[in-house]
Amino acid sequence: MTAGTERVRINGEPASTVSAFDRGFLYGDGLFETIRWVDGDVPLWARHRERLAEGCARLGLPVPDGSLEADIAEVAAGLPDAVIRLTLTRGVGKRGYALPDAVPGTRVVAATPSPTMRAGAYTEGLHLRLCQTRLAVQPALAGLKHLNRLEQVLARAEWNDASIDEGLMFDMEGRVVCATAANIFAVFDGELLTPALDRCGVAGVARAEVLALQTDVHVVALTLDTLLQADELFLSSSVRGILPVRSLPGRDWTPGPVTRQLQAHWLDLGLPPLKSPEFAA
Amino acid sequence: MTAGTERVRINGEPASTVSAFDRGFLYGDGLFETIRWVDGDVPLWARHRERLAEGCARLGLPVPDGSLEADIAEVAAGLPDAVIRLTLTRGVGKRGYALPDAVPGTRVVAATPSPTMRAGAYTEGLHLRLCQTRLAVQPALAGLKHLNRLEQVLARAEWNDASIDEGLMFDMEGRVVCATAANIFAVFDGELLTPALDRCGVAGVARAEVLALQTDVHVVALTLDTLLQADELFLSSSVRGILPVRSLPGRDWTPGPVTRQLQAHWLDLGLPPLKSPEFAA
Repeated sequence: MTAGTERVRINGEPASTVSAFDRGFLYGDGLFETIRWVDGDVPLWARHRERLAEGCARLGLPVPDGSLEADIAEVAAGLPDAVIRLTLTRGVGKRGYALPDAVPGTRVVAATPSPTMRAGAYTEGLHLRLCQTRLAVQPALAGLKHLNRLEQVLARAEWNDASIDEGLMFDMEGRVVCATAANIFAVFDGELLTPALDRCGVAGVARAEVLALQTDVHVVALTLDTLLQADELFLSSSVRGILPVRSLPGRDWTPGPVTRQLQAHWLDLGLPPLKSPEFAA
Repeated sequence: MTAGTERVRINGEPASTVSAFDRGFLYGDGLFETIRWVDGDVPLWARHRERLAEGCARLGLPVPDGSLEADIAEVAAGLPDAVIRLTLTRGVGKRGYALPDAVPGTRVVAATPSPTMRAGAYTEGLHLRLCQTRLAVQPALAGLKHLNRLEQVLARAEWNDASIDEGLMFDMEGRVVCATAANIFAVFDGELLTPALDRCGVAGVARAEVLALQTDVHVVALTLDTLLQADELFLSSSVRGILPVRSLPGRDWTPGPVTRQLQAHWLDLGLPPLKSPEFAA
């Protein structure tokens, strides 16, 4: 990505670089959000704001004021479908891990055109592999979308086969947690199960939307054996929406009614499926 | 820190900012070294190079060529005593965790004058507290000095009392691992014990030097109860050198002969104690 400054604002000004002494760069000391913008709106914005506020509280960062929304509107202006990456860091401080004294944080807001998804991703579903890289158990950081993402980088580096769409990740004790960049739900007799994220994993805003919608939803410890017996499996992502799982090693599915119903809800929210490359602008 | 470009080189050129799309900033996807420079030399350079090579191999980053040493000499030129921060990242790629196709990485080399240590730090020792923040068990990243350092940031944020010099950190299962920015050794009847770092923690270059010097040294699982019975405790740090531990909650020590002998070795290496603020230039 070699975006110029026209679609990036840093601390409210057009810019495309950050200090080499920013604690985001030195230590990953910050948070981010990936946000879908469609036709001048961010349908899940209230949930992004809520997660951001919780992350700021847990890491001791100031919560951004209303100029954040203005920055988003500015960088995404004119784009019909875009992904906004918002990055908040503790800013530039003196050397070492100790928190700097009341320095302003750094806020990067950048827009890029939305990615495409291969044809069939929404209608037939995704092929998932099982990742070898495990997620470490760290309750102090669990659920946050913080900038320490080497585990996801290592997991995603395990495959380079375009026929594999995503990888399922497990914690150190073998419990299912998430995909590398999405949350996962299993459907059993119309009831939804999704992994608890109080030990590791990112609590996605799309996951929060599904949890708020459904009455029969249970946040539990989940094993692969349980997943393989589900009636339906799907992934949730703020950018990609609701994606049926078509296969895991050892089992195939066809998209089921609960997945379809949630995809319809996403459309109602104003979040249509991402285009396939043939139809992208 | 508001260094200008005169003591920072990025990819071999004077500069002080990095792309807001650098994977170091986006995901903490990289490594760093903190290196002490004294009078035109880096006494532990071979060990820094060795750790860097191992880190690059494990994260799949290219190992820097000899222009790295030239960059260090350039940024530190004229400084009698300096800390070099070297940061290597996977560079700027397309959006998402997937590894970019053969993009050049980013290399930041920055020099700052060495920090001071309070009077008595080397002669009487440091006061340590016990950190509540635990280190997650993650063998895939253990030992590496990577850019995902939120655990250390949270641990260091636990205290703001100038009479506390460092914090002792434990893993999720309660084993002793390290201080927030140093390794730890315990002495029993002339034998050294230090925590194994195959599950979490950073394998410091000063620790490697101690391990190479001593014949009676054992890399083991260590508990706090064991530490509290030690004849001597000391910390090792590439920047700060060999630091006696004066107290942990529940026990005081006076610096012992093994600690003194290692401090003398550090002096022989060309790494004198950091100055106290009264005597800093």
